[in-house]
Formats: sequence, C-alpha cells, structure tokens
Amino acid sequence: MNSLAGLLKAARGLEPADLVLKGGKVFNVFSGVFEETDLAIKDGIIVGLGRYDGQEEADMSGRWLIPGLIDTHMHIESTQLCPGELARVIVPRGTTAIVADPHEIANVLGLDGIRFMLSASEGLPLDVFLNVPSCVPATHMETAGAELAAEDLAELLNAPRVLGLAEVMNFPGVINGLPGVLDKLRLFAGRPIDGHAPFLSGRDLCAYVLPGIATDHECTNLEEAGEKLARGLRILIREGSTARNLEALLPLVSPGNLRRLAFCTDDRHPEDLIREGHLDHILRKALFLGLDPVSALTMATLNPAETFGLNDRGALAPGRIADVVVLESLDRMQVERVYKNGRLAAENGRLLGSMPPLEMPAWISPMNIGPLDEATLEVEAAGPLVRVIEVVEHQVLTGCLTVETPALDGLVVADPGRDLARIVVVERHKGTGNVGKGLVKGLGLKAGALASSVAHDSHNIVAAGMSTADLLAAVRAVEKMGGGQAVVLDGRVLAQLPLPIAGLMSDAPADQVAETGARLKDAARQTGAALTDPFMTLSFLALAVIPSLKITDMGLVDVEKFAIVPMFPE
Amino acid sequence: MNSLAGLLKAARGLEPADLVLKGGKVFNVFSGVFEETDLAIKDGIIVGLGRYDGQEEADMSGRWLIPGLIDTHMHIESTQLCPGELARVIVPRGTTAIVADPHEIANVLGLDGIRFMLSASEGLPLDVFLNVPSCVPATHMETAGAELAAEDLAELLNAPRVLGLAEVMNFPGVINGLPGVLDKLRLFAGRPIDGHAPFLSGRDLCAYVLPGIATDHECTNLEEAGEKLARGLRILIREGSTARNLEALLPLVSPGNLRRLAFCTDDRHPEDLIREGHLDHILRKALFLGLDPVSALTMATLNPAETFGLNDRGALAPGRIADVVVLESLDRMQVERVYKNGRLAAENGRLLGSMPPLEMPAWISPMNIGPLDEATLEVEAAGPLVRVIEVVEHQVLTGCLTVETPALDGLVVADPGRDLARIVVVERHKGTGNVGKGLVKGLGLKAGALASSVAHDSHNIVAAGMSTADLLAAVRAVEKMGGGQAVVLDGRVLAQLPLPIAGLMSDAPADQVAETGARLKDAARQTGAALTDPFMTLSFLALAVIPSLKITDMGLVDVEKFAIVPMFPE
Repeated sequence: MNSLAGLLKAARGLEPADLVLKGGKVFNVFSGVFEETDLAIKDGIIVGLGRYDGQEEADMSGRWLIPGLIDTHMHIESTQLCPGELARVIVPRGTTAIVADPHEIANVLGLDGIRFMLSASEGLPLDVFLNVPSCVPATHMETAGAELAAEDLAELLNAPRVLGLAEVMNFPGVINGLPGVLDKLRLFAGRPIDGHAPFLSGRDLCAYVLPGIATDHECTNLEEAGEKLARGLRILIREGSTARNLEALLPLVSPGNLRRLAFCTDDRHPEDLIREGHLDHILRKALFLGLDPVSALTMATLNPAETFGLNDRGALAPGRIADVVVLESLDRMQVERVYKNGRLAAENGRLLGSMPPLEMPAWISPMNIGPLDEATLEVEAAGPLVRVIEVVEHQVLTGCLTVETPALDGLVVADPGRDLARIVVVERHKGTGNVGKGLVKGLGLKAGALASSVAHDSHNIVAAGMSTADLLAAVRAVEKMGGGQAVVLDGRVLAQLPLPIAGLMSDAPADQVAETGARLKDAARQTGAALTDPFMTLSFLALAVIPSLKITDMGLVDVEKFAIVPMFPE
Repeated sequence: MNSLAGLLKAARGLEPADLVLKGGKVFNVFSGVFEETDLAIKDGIIVGLGRYDGQEEADMSGRWLIPGLIDTHMHIESTQLCPGELARVIVPRGTTAIVADPHEIANVLGLDGIRFMLSASEGLPLDVFLNVPSCVPATHMETAGAELAAEDLAELLNAPRVLGLAEVMNFPGVINGLPGVLDKLRLFAGRPIDGHAPFLSGRDLCAYVLPGIATDHECTNLEEAGEKLARGLRILIREGSTARNLEALLPLVSPGNLRRLAFCTDDRHPEDLIREGHLDHILRKALFLGLDPVSALTMATLNPAETFGLNDRGALAPGRIADVVVLESLDRMQVERVYKNGRLAAENGRLLGSMPPLEMPAWISPMNIGPLDEATLEVEAAGPLVRVIEVVEHQVLTGCLTVETPALDGLVVADPGRDLARIVVVERHKGTGNVGKGLVKGLGLKAGALASSVAHDSHNIVAAGMSTADLLAAVRAVEKMGGGQAVVLDGRVLAQLPLPIAGLMSDAPADQVAETGARLKDAARQTGAALTDPFMTLSFLALAVIPSLKITDMGLVDVEKFAIVPMFPE
C-alpha cells in the first residue's frame, strides 16, 4: 500500500499508467455487460476504466477482456505436474488462480508436503491458494505417510496463501460429531471450508452444512445439486478428466442462483489439460451446452473469488489485481493473451518469461519399503473360493465378486482366461513390510505387470500383474525411480514415468510428462491392458472410502463394512 | 461451538429441537423460492429444514418466514432514540440487525461516544454492528468535541461488533491521497469500508474505489448508480426520512446485478419509524413500485449480510442464527412475529420481554459553554450589505444571498418582513466561548427562537430567532437540559425535548420521544416557523461540507471556497 498515492494519481489520469489496454470490450461482471473502454494498470493493479494514457499501450480493439479465471477446487497432484509446469500449461489458457487441495502429497509427506507445495508455487504467474487437507489419512485401514490432526493443521493457519479447510470427505464424522473432525471444523470457523458429500440429503445434509461447510463439488445430478444449494452450500460444478458433471448440472443455473455457483476441475490429467484445456475448456463446453457467456464467465471469475474471500480479484475494477485475459473470440473462448499482475505472462498459448527453479529437497522422494522378495508377494490358496475386486471402467467404485480360486502348486495365480490378475499394495512410507494381496478382474492383462506409487489416498505402491516376478520387477522399478509408474513385461521395463515428487508428481516439463504418460499407456496395452487409462484405474483400487471391495497395504477392504476382510471368505 | 455435537443431533432429528416453526412458507434466498417446510431451531441456531419435531412447536401454516432484515447503513443518532428504544420500534417491524455509523456521537464524545453506543446496544434483541466514523471532525472550520485519527480508530479494531470503516465522506481527501485519510483506509484494509461520494464519476470515481471502498449510499439517479455499480461499488439504496432514493434507483435492479444491491435508511426520524416503519416500509414501497418479492427480500437479507461479511445470518439455512420474521402477508410485508436468536422477541407490533437498563455515565451529557450573555450574541452592523444563508426546504444544501443589512442602533437585527432571522452557533464542547453569528432567510419565524444541540456535524448549539433575549433563552434552555431542542417565545420555553445522550439522543421511551417531538414542532409553528421540520432544517445549517453558505461556531462558511468568510463582504 506504500504506492497508494501513486496509484491514485494514475487512476485520476494525472500521471500515465504503466500499461493501458486500449479500446477492448471489457467484461463487467458487476453489471453483466461488455464495455468498450480502456483499462489502465499500474504496479500490477487495475487503476481505472475510461480514457487513459499509458507508458505502454496495447490496442485491444476487437478483443474481449475478461478477469483471470479461477479454479475453485483442484488437486495439483492429479496433473502429475509440479506447480510451475502446471502454470506453464494453464496460464496460457486463462487461469490465473487456483484453489488447490494438497491432499495427496499430505498423505505422503504430511505438513512438509503441504509446505513444499507452497514453496514450489511461489513466484509463479499463477496464484496457488491452498485449502489444507481435512482427511489425512483417509482411513485407518491403510498405512499413510502422515496423520494430520487439528493441532497439526493449526501450524498452517497463518501461512500465506492458505485459505481454509479442504474438502471434508469424512461426512459421517461430521454428522456424527466425531471430536477429531469437529476440532478441525472449529479451527477453521469463519474461514472457507469445502465440502464433499456425495448424495447426502435431508436432515443429514442439514447436519453437514451446520458447522460451516460452505461448498460441495460432488453433485452428480440436478436434484442433489438443487437441494444442496437450497441448504446453503455453494455448488462447485466439476468438470475434470474423469468426473464430468457439467452437462448434468448446467440446467441448475438460473439468474436467481447464479451467485452460488462456480466451476472446478478437481482431478485433471496432463494430457487433457494440454489437449482440451482447463477452465477455458469448461467455458467452451458450457457455451456449447447453451449457457450465456455472462453467466459462464461470472461462474469462473467473481463467484470463485467471493466463495473464497479473494476480494482482490474476480473482476476488472479499480483496486483489483490486474489479472486480465484477452480473448480473440468470446464464443470459442479463444485466449490470445494473459496478463498476470499487469504483466504479459502468456501469448498465443505459450507462457512467456522464465519460471523460478524448482527446489527439490532430498526428502521429497520418500521410498521406504520393508523386506520384499517374490516369496513375500505370494499367497497360499487357502480356500476354494476367493474374493475378487471387480473393475468398473470409468468409475471409482468397484464390485466385489467371489470366484473359484485360481491356484497352482498351492499358490494363488493369475488367470488370463477369466481376466483375473494379481494385485498387491506394498507399503512404502514406514518400512513396515506390509503387503496387501488380492485378485482383480477386468484389467484385461495377459502378461507382465503395472505398478504405480499413485494409489489413492495413502499412495503406497499398487501393482497388478500376471506373474510374481513381473509384479516384483514393476514394484522395484517404481522404487528405483523414487516413485513413479512402470510397465514390466517378462522382467523388462517397457516404459516408466518417474514421479520423484512424493511419488505423485514429475519435475519434468509438462509436454514431456504428457508424452511419457502416453508411451506408458501404449506399453500397458502390450501387456493386454484394455482400459482407457489403466494407471488411473489402478490408482483408485486402493481408495478404501469408495465401495465395494478395495485393497490397501493392510489387505482387502470391504468398504460397506468399513473393515479389512480376508481374501478367502470363511 | 461447545454445543456443536448437540446441534448436530437436533439437525439429524435424533433429538427434538428447542423450537420448530411448522409448515410455513420458508423463503429460500439461495434458490429464490418459498418452500413449505418446518424450520428447526436449537440454541438460537437454525439446525434444519424438513420434517422436525420440537420441544416447542408453532404452527406457521399460511405464514411466510423470511430471514431477519438488515439495515446496511444508519445513524442511530438521527432517530433521537437510544439503541434499546430503537430496538423497541424496529424489531417488531422485522429488523434484527443494523450496521450503524456513530458519526454524530463521535463528533461530540470521540471514542467514548462510540464505546457508549457499543455498551448501550449490548444484550438487545437487535444486533447493532458499528462501522467506525472516518471523518471526525468533518472540517477544521468548526470546533468538534473530538478528533479521531487512524491511531485512535485502531483502538476499536478488535472491539466486538465493530465491522469496518464508516462512510468515507472526505472523497477529495481520498482521491488526492491525503496521508491522514489513507492511514485510515490502510488500517481497515480487507475489512468493510463504506463510501459516500455524491456525483463522483469517471476517473475520480475510479480513484475513490481503488483503495478498497466498497459501498455507496449517496446515489440519487440511475446513471450515477449504474456507473458506481460498474466500478465495483455495492449500491446501498437509501430510503430515509429526508433522502428518499428508492423510486429513482429501483429501475437499476436486474437479475444480473441484484447481488450488488441492498437497502439502507441512513437517517430516519422517530415519527417516521413509528408511523411508516423501517425496512418493512422500504420493502412495501419497493413492491408497490413493482419489484418482485424475491429480489426485494434478497436485498434486505442475504445481500446486506454478504456486504459486511456477516456469514452467520441473512438466510434461513442450517448453522445460521435463528433470526426469523413471520409475515402475515407477503405483499403487504405485514410482520406478525419476530424471532431473534430463536426466541420470540416481538408479536403483533410489540416487543416482548424487558430491555436491559440503559447506563448513563455522567460524562454522557457534555455541556461546556464559555462566557455567554446577550452582548456576546449581538453583531455590529459593520456594512451596508450582509451575507445571508438561504434555506432551501427539503434539502441539506443552502443558498447564499447578499442583502441590505437590517440594523437598529448599529446592531444587526432580525427582519420578519424579509423573513430574515438571526442565527448563532454556540460552541459547547471546550468552553472556547466561540459564537458564530449570521442571518438566515426562509425559516418563516415571526418571533421567539429555536435552539438545538443537534447541529451537524460538530453538534454545537445552533439557534435561530428574532430577538437576542429569546436566542439566549433558547440556548440556555438547551444547556440546562444537558442537550436537546427548545422553542422559546417572549422569554418563555414553549416546548422542549431533552436529549441528554450527547445532546443527540433521548433516554426516554420511543413513543414519548415522538410525542414530545411533535409538540416541539407545534410550538415552533407558534413562532411562525413555516417549514415541515424546522429543527431538522436548523441542524443542517451548520453542516459545513454541503454548499453553499453555512455557519459554525467559527463563523460563516463559504463551502465552495471551503473557508470562513466575514458576515459583511469587503
């Protein structure tokens, strides 16, 4: 604020502004119109709209100017990109701020992981705000790298760019008044608290909203979204790589409730970001589906800003940060330029200027696997029937089958004829030597093995394969990379993607990550993997909060019973 | 939050709520509809909507339930009522919270005055929030009771119920970057800052908005309001006793900008509150003028709450304070009951329960007048022509005339034939003995004198009269009351209204204040006073920030020149 006097002079036109964007069609989110006017900027702040002169001037005639787009909820880890590389991809597409939930890295590295995300996102042409994860670990039926109680989260309360509490997935904990959960809600009272409560309804929904939970991004149908909206939740319409709710929820939007709606991507893969885009893609799709541009833009600018109390942005108005996106076309949401803090940050799809170097502390790649050999991975065939995880493509949930045990020499084996692969989860945080073992149906594997250190939510190493040797080789390949994803066939690593940041993210350039990811999928196809994205499917087989049968380092989890169950039913 | 677990149980219907309002048409401000449903309350908090049982239940069938109404900007002092008596009048009309600006009492008593307003509004069935006055004193051409710099205001930053900075009337100070003004803006950065900038436009308006000023309640025409809205100010549409802007501004309201609009009363007299109402009156008038009920109610509930970050109210939703207004009729906005914090606070126009006693410290009636006698009030006729303040009825501004000096024995005298009365402002805060003297045209006085300790903004004693003796008697009557308003004829006090709270407010019951006020006006008519509200007119003749010619204890003020000018032009 030291330069306030200078800003005022520029606003009054008594001194030239640093930069004037001349004569564009400026989106006014408050009145819902486009004004043909100059936009004057000084010290990274919008100082005025009207007739202005600047030390630098840029002709914007025929262009649309909109505020920088804001993603209300995303997991950076899902992009497999480090924050800087994420910025390289999404800033040229018009995103200038995101509210990220570092839930995944927190499950691996705890507070250190969250602090890493803060430091790794410093000095970027993208403002990365964090909501701190509320559910680390997700369950007590798995070994996570960390456990975060309210007193741990309290250490981050005053960290810069920390806004509030991230998605409170433990909705049974909330409505049943679990002390540990309530402690976290109390800690963040008066600050943004994100919800996550699929299908919650009626009085239970009232209970969930009561302690101050303010948003929900899990709505999948109109009725659900309408009820949550009516009870006071702001609805963050999600359109990610897997969960795509825009089409189902768009009919919800009306002038009367627009202010309570915003967009988010939640989980978005690097290939999709590069190919389709980020919020620009959502806006394009929304317009295609019939939403008017004013409503769509409002949901990506002012509404996100208001939801998280970011009153310094979300609109092109005096005193706000000069995050300005220049559109070549409004109906195609074609981004030509992006100004971040009043400086040209991207043009024609490319980020300008250099990125601050990424500092990688030694502890960022924890890989602490206990004793492990082929014998450790074997399972005795202890019964005639065996529980099997059934993959449901494009869904995070799974089925639970009971089938005749495929066995050889008294050991459980894969059975390509029945599309049964072996699956293991190898604990990698504390060297416990835990290995969860089971069978999975539906991956399509014929030979070889896939392994990944991305395995929600504890991110132990999950591997599926047709032979013990390949399973072990795949796990070892991931271990050797300090985290990552690998495809092994006949003992040989066909392809691998190193994810040295907590085993979740790459430090490589974005296009390289996307390319390696594509090669990885190609290689997986050589093992017979028939799914669109077998590594994503694999990563959710360990997610012990979504029904029905899942697997963690502690064994098979019957999610409905919320209990570890033996492989061989009694 | 200790009882959070209990609230959750009630929300889930596992335990009965304290109170259930059954089967009313509940206004849902988020979705813009009325839902026929129960509303469950526990510990003063709304716990749920749906089917509920309560220890107490009230049948609401056929009734409309709306959130408690919120006035975004008002000066309690203008009502002449103490906060408790104000609550007695406006709570039964549906107002459950106000954002008050104690500008007047601060000009008399400084921080002590503001603290008095806080303590006098404790424990009421009305939540009184304060924005702290930004402009005490209003000018340096008058003697106020206090001067409040940023460092003084800082003492109130963390006081309970203090929200932000009240109307920044010194707009030239803002846009010219006056350090003392910027200090106050910096002090309240990130908190609500109210604006007050009549007719400001273009680049100067941009400069005014830039440092974070968030609202404006001074718009009088559509174009002005439209521009201010577009630049990011929230528009508080004012409908007070004198300034009535609702009709002019209502065409501004559209679905696209509704969220940026709210109502306020600013200055409202006790008779009008009692006769017409408060926000209920504004709502009635808005509906009469054609606004739909959903928009109107949104502007009096959720929008005010969001404007001031009062996220615990403004909607009937789980977790919010149970301030509920029961309407017998929606189109006539007929209030039947008011629940405050879940307790029945008013019914059929009457407040229930007892009010906490008003503590009146000895220093609350400061009256420190210097040496004063008839001679002090006289003015020598020092020239053939004299400057005269010209009253413009129903306006706060005045004209400036130059007329032939009415004189007798070398002294200036009143001249009823030309409707010229004498006017004096007697300093009452510091015993300086200052007396500003002049002539005023247009009051209609034939004889006697009127005096008042309500004299914006420094609230010295202003008196207008036809003889020196009556002027002195009227001033003495006000002094004797420890502040108030008096009508004197032929040396006798015809009527008087004591205002012992800083010379601005009464400690008497509201109806008594209104009654005495009416008697005072009747008495004024006996002196010939021809205006609708001569005391209000009188109170604005000392307001040295509104053109043209005004009078303070330091003399006549030419507001355009922003300077003291002599009575006899050179």
